[in-house]
Amino acid sequence: MRRVKWAADYLGEAKCRIVQPQAMAGNWKEKLGGKKLHVEIGTGKGNYSLGMSELYPQDGFVAVEKNESAAGIAAKKYDEYGRSNLLLVYDDADRIEEWFGQGEVDVIHLNFSDPWPKKRNAKRRLSSPKFLKQYEKILSDDGEIQMKTDNSSLFEYSLLEMLAGGFELTDVSVDFRREDHPEDVITEYEEKFIAEQKPIYRSVWKKKKDETD
Amino acid sequence: MRRVKWAADYLGEAKCRIVQPQAMAGNWKEKLGGKKLHVEIGTGKGNYSLGMSELYPQDGFVAVEKNESAAGIAAKKYDEYGRSNLLLVYDDADRIEEWFGQGEVDVIHLNFSDPWPKKRNAKRRLSSPKFLKQYEKILSDDGEIQMKTDNSSLFEYSLLEMLAGGFELTDVSVDFRREDHPEDVITEYEEKFIAEQKPIYRSVWKKKKDETD
Repeated sequence: MRRVKWAADYLGEAKCRIVQPQAMAGNWKEKLGGKKLHVEIGTGKGNYSLGMSELYPQDGFVAVEKNESAAGIAAKKYDEYGRSNLLLVYDDADRIEEWFGQGEVDVIHLNFSDPWPKKRNAKRRLSSPKFLKQYEKILSDDGEIQMKTDNSSLFEYSLLEMLAGGFELTDVSVDFRREDHPEDVITEYEEKFIAEQKPIYRSVWKKKKDETD
Repeated sequence: MRRVKWAADYLGEAKCRIVQPQAMAGNWKEKLGGKKLHVEIGTGKGNYSLGMSELYPQDGFVAVEKNESAAGIAAKKYDEYGRSNLLLVYDDADRIEEWFGQGEVDVIHLNFSDPWPKKRNAKRRLSSPKFLKQYEKILSDDGEIQMKTDNSSLFEYSLLEMLAGGFELTDVSVDFRREDHPEDVITEYEEKFIAEQKPIYRSVWKKKKDETD
């Protein structure tokens, strides 16, 4: 995306932003006053988490974005809407296990994550083993991962990796917007793909009950 | 499909046809002279198994079709080509476990099976639990199920049911013909969907190694 000049300055003073997420581990629900804790990794310009925080006012939401320009736009939006159940982390999620207590997170949202199509970059995908191990730690026993993508290769890769990583597939769609889903917010990217009549792939995952690790 | 008047008569005398598949249980490889035994359930007019029997002359193929007209067309075609590694069963596969010995089958092919969209007909789907339990019995330890469909709902249903049924997903594609696959024959239906630029969904399954049943 195009560089947003004011983003760095804005992020320096944004009210919705948590600068040191590590220091919040174990205390997110208290801070957000939410029943369930949702974490969206890669929120982009932030519309999904904003919309979800309105749709589920009883829950708490943490939106994560590492791109400065996107995070700046999201931060400004969140401050303007001033929702008490929504916070932003402007950081790389590659050590996300340090940001949350064990079992603290109820839902992880992965929306239209970068597919990193080249094999040598596979470890950067948000559904690669390195990330899945961290999700397993921070997710509650009944916690789930909800993933949407327009990218068929990322969808296929994620199906195989998540199964291999010990997650259980509880729901799947290869054309999620074939039916209405008022329970789930349409992201900026998603709107574009729907307009182009491209299918949205979605999968929902739980930790396996019989897993001991 | 339209009724083929000569089908019944032809099936009565077809050389490629095995009238009593139960009597063959345990002896298919001997009869077919194949290294691996492939079974296609619902071959329609029979092109897939015919093409595969040419592509893999070292393997044996059993094509199953319950529709009289389709089976008649397939039978005539198979007799004309006269391939020694290809046989036809004109029968309903709902008791397929009686046709094969335990672990006798190496690959089960399900191509563009009837989706039976209504929930009350779910048990007729070839990936429903009743069928999966039978596949598990007749498949060898390294055996696999290869499934292709154009129907997104059947694909989703099958993913969830096969996982629940204890099968392991070893390969998956939501747009199988995105790449060339010279190792797999294009069926009559598939050709039509490719021409219409509709995606072909494909999944490949193995029995779980650690399953004890």
